[in-house]
Amino acid sequence: MRIMNDVVGKEVVDSNGMLIGVVGDLQFDVESKELLALILKQKGFSFSFSSSNNERVVPYDSIKKIGDVILLKDEYDI
Amino acid sequence: MRIMNDVVGKEVVDSNGMLIGVVGDLQFDVESKELLALILKQKGFSFSFSSSNNERVVPYDSIKKIGDVILLKDEYDI
Repeated sequence: MRIMNDVVGKEVVDSNGMLIGVVGDLQFDVESKELLALILKQKGFSFSFSSSNNERVVPYDSIKKIGDVILLKDEYDI
Repeated sequence: MRIMNDVVGKEVVDSNGMLIGVVGDLQFDVESKELLALILKQKGFSFSFSSSNNERVVPYDSIKKIGDVILLKDEYDI
């Protein structure tokens, strides 16, 4: 699977079916070469009130499935 | 470190100081969450002769250092 092709820009949906953001970047560990987290660009009302970069960090382990959207596990709470 | 911020779009230089491409994407393993390889968009003459996507795959383990450019280890041969 590929980062740019299959992850970046994809919508992230929690187990309640709520769209919590779009993948803007990913954190990784250079030494262990492990992916650590998704950095989301949030969607929603907050954009109307602020021009600052609204980031949310979602641990990579919260991912249930990467399909047309990225589904998060049940235990992921906003 | 971040994929989009610190890796994608960066020039890749081998131990002879030769520029071998620019990072266009990264391969990873969804289960082990490990980064496997850089997918380079090659620069150079080949571009003049072909409009097809010229890709080169560089194993992640060939990376010596990620700085302003990405330096490859001595053992990496083109």
